[in-house]
Amino acid sequence: MTKPSPLSGFPELLPTQRNAELVIVRQLAHVFELHGFANIETRAVEPLEVLLSKGEIDQEVYVLRRLQAAEDSHDTGLGLHYDLTVPFARYVVESSGKLGFPFRRYQIQKAWRGERPQEGRFREFTQADIDIVGRDELAFHYDVEVARVMAQALADLPLPPLRMQVNNRKLIEGFYRGLGARDTDPVAVRRIVDRLDKLPVAAVRALLEDVGLSDKHAELCLALTQIRSTDGSFVDQVRGLGVEHDLLDTGLAELAAVIDGCRGLSNERFTVAADLRIARGLDYYTGTVFETVMAGFESLGSVCSGGRYDALAVEGSTTYPGVGLSFGVSRTLVPLFSRGLLTSTRSVPSAVLVAVSADDSRGDSEAVAAALRRRGIPTEVAASAQKYGRQIRYAERRGIPFVWFPGGDSTVDSVKDIRSGDQHAADAAVWTPPLDDLRPQLISKEQTP
Amino acid sequence: MTKPSPLSGFPELLPTQRNAELVIVRQLAHVFELHGFANIETRAVEPLEVLLSKGEIDQEVYVLRRLQAAEDSHDTGLGLHYDLTVPFARYVVESSGKLGFPFRRYQIQKAWRGERPQEGRFREFTQADIDIVGRDELAFHYDVEVARVMAQALADLPLPPLRMQVNNRKLIEGFYRGLGARDTDPVAVRRIVDRLDKLPVAAVRALLEDVGLSDKHAELCLALTQIRSTDGSFVDQVRGLGVEHDLLDTGLAELAAVIDGCRGLSNERFTVAADLRIARGLDYYTGTVFETVMAGFESLGSVCSGGRYDALAVEGSTTYPGVGLSFGVSRTLVPLFSRGLLTSTRSVPSAVLVAVSADDSRGDSEAVAAALRRRGIPTEVAASAQKYGRQIRYAERRGIPFVWFPGGDSTVDSVKDIRSGDQHAADAAVWTPPLDDLRPQLISKEQTP
Repeated sequence: MTKPSPLSGFPELLPTQRNAELVIVRQLAHVFELHGFANIETRAVEPLEVLLSKGEIDQEVYVLRRLQAAEDSHDTGLGLHYDLTVPFARYVVESSGKLGFPFRRYQIQKAWRGERPQEGRFREFTQADIDIVGRDELAFHYDVEVARVMAQALADLPLPPLRMQVNNRKLIEGFYRGLGARDTDPVAVRRIVDRLDKLPVAAVRALLEDVGLSDKHAELCLALTQIRSTDGSFVDQVRGLGVEHDLLDTGLAELAAVIDGCRGLSNERFTVAADLRIARGLDYYTGTVFETVMAGFESLGSVCSGGRYDALAVEGSTTYPGVGLSFGVSRTLVPLFSRGLLTSTRSVPSAVLVAVSADDSRGDSEAVAAALRRRGIPTEVAASAQKYGRQIRYAERRGIPFVWFPGGDSTVDSVKDIRSGDQHAADAAVWTPPLDDLRPQLISKEQTP
Repeated sequence: MTKPSPLSGFPELLPTQRNAELVIVRQLAHVFELHGFANIETRAVEPLEVLLSKGEIDQEVYVLRRLQAAEDSHDTGLGLHYDLTVPFARYVVESSGKLGFPFRRYQIQKAWRGERPQEGRFREFTQADIDIVGRDELAFHYDVEVARVMAQALADLPLPPLRMQVNNRKLIEGFYRGLGARDTDPVAVRRIVDRLDKLPVAAVRALLEDVGLSDKHAELCLALTQIRSTDGSFVDQVRGLGVEHDLLDTGLAELAAVIDGCRGLSNERFTVAADLRIARGLDYYTGTVFETVMAGFESLGSVCSGGRYDALAVEGSTTYPGVGLSFGVSRTLVPLFSRGLLTSTRSVPSAVLVAVSADDSRGDSEAVAAALRRRGIPTEVAASAQKYGRQIRYAERRGIPFVWFPGGDSTVDSVKDIRSGDQHAADAAVWTPPLDDLRPQLISKEQTP
């Protein structure tokens, strides 16, 4: 084999980075499970007609064909899923008779898109999704719950500051309707306003006037997008614009409930805020919408998005409404890894390397390792009876914090913290490393400006 | 959406089954990490030339093309990996400068093969692999170690009895060479003997004579395949056949070391045995070889296989020898799930459902849930303030063992074990469920003959 090169868009992690990703993925799973979300995995492939039913991203799908299939029938009709929502919707409909609703699930899996790779946009990437889906109905309080659960999962991660921005489609649509511009399509208005991150304000104002809004109404629409708050004060700010509509009232109450429900979860690294500019491009959202930006990494776009959809899936006369959030594990972590801003304390799980004093005493070292493992301490035994200096360097290169020296028949065992050099007598039946040394820990660095 | 049908060969699990798979996968990962194996994940795709370098299974590869790519260039040149060994070998060579050798890794991922589905043979399946790979050399004691680690990982799983059968290529080849049949190719002999599971003994004997073995020598080859033992007694049995060769001695010593190293790990559900018939079809094994059969499921073939290969990969003048084992997670578990022989205690992680007495007291129930979660107890809150009977049935259907009734301002809280009906006063700040109820547990049933 000649030395292979990485494939653009298919990031792979070195063991030290993977340890950091594992810590984070396990912490996400832990929080999701604490809140009763059941894990599922869906197959990597879906029939093309399922993947293309949304219509917008067909150019990005990878289609499978069997290498040795007959020339004239080489496609399997299957493609790799490009997100976890489409397969989840299919799974819910397929298994609906065997699931309990509301069905709360989390799913941490890879997805694939054949798009041009750029930072944070990969051809293969891991997503961590939570959704709650109902049959025919789903109470609003689940919007608050998914926000709280994801906020709790993300708030304690040592990432650059995250800001989860929440808005509500009913609020926006009610506002546009309340303007009284009866002939104006609120969806068209929303789509124009959604272009504020790409177009200058004047251009957006002109487009709003093109679809029939008066100067004053266009100005009100733009004023709405300026409103944001980390508490319920956005409600009075919206009221101050003087627009009234029942749907606006519902939207304001829902958004206030989400912001209020996440009270107490914000900290210096994680904020939940009402932000009346965000709308999410996708048309299937019908209420709460979420986007999350990472400070210093705004160019990645949203790293955690989602919202309420009244019809995740429809089968016959049954509708499955849902609400959920999707955290881009690869989108968030890979840029941090590649800039050296996130890593872990070591490349192996081992907390202890048991030294080998002579090749024929390897069994003694194995016995020490077995005793430590019985008490849950990840341990490996040195490769061979090299000089102790070389065995210590073996541990150092891997970030293993402790080296254990079996005493043999004559002396007692001792354990050395190779970072400090401290060495003391120890008994493998009782010695325990500090909790922070038991497993690889995350190391995050501040981005230098 | 019309109700979708399952795709043949792409098994998906219901949440209760997935909980069982999760328990098992986490237990495997825990044991691997206790022994210092670092986790890695490789991308799902490899360049076709990497996938096809082994040559034998090209008809099974799924090739990717981008749906909207130009007609005349529709293949990406990438295929889905069909095992975890080929991508691991490529990863080792690609990252060799950044890895510490010997490199111990585990990998639990899906693989894909476009083959015809049958029980235990899927188009998408999960494997759990451990390997130790060296640069230029790898001490024999690692053969013993991977056997011990996998044995320890599998021995405590509530599966039908597993028998890990170990042999050694040096032993077999040394035996054939020791016969003195100089003109006979030992590889040819091994391949013929390997057909004993498909051909009658007489046919195999005839084939052996076809390649130049005498009656007596063919008989000795067949006698060798009859030898098996769960201890070192196989050595004397082989010696009793009167064949001598240095390579045979080495193979006997290595096999005896593996069997001896796994002493103490066998129990009523898991056995490690020397079995001199098994050879593994793949030519790249050069020493220890492993196969594992599951009692009552012999038709699945081996559920955990592997061995020693002197050249996992070669790059320039550097060789990477390795030894490893691969456990077929899907191959083993999916047949057990589909026959109802393995499941878990519930479909959700939740140990507690907190009831809601009135819609406006949902906050009280949420506060109880938060208190329980802070102490690591997975908890969900009832969907709505239905009659308590319906809330209890909600818990029952999901297998949630406890329902919590907030007392409100007037009375104390109480918790009910809905299996026994026992209900008693409880304080969310201190109450803890029995350890066995904290997380979903495996339930295994004996196969009825």
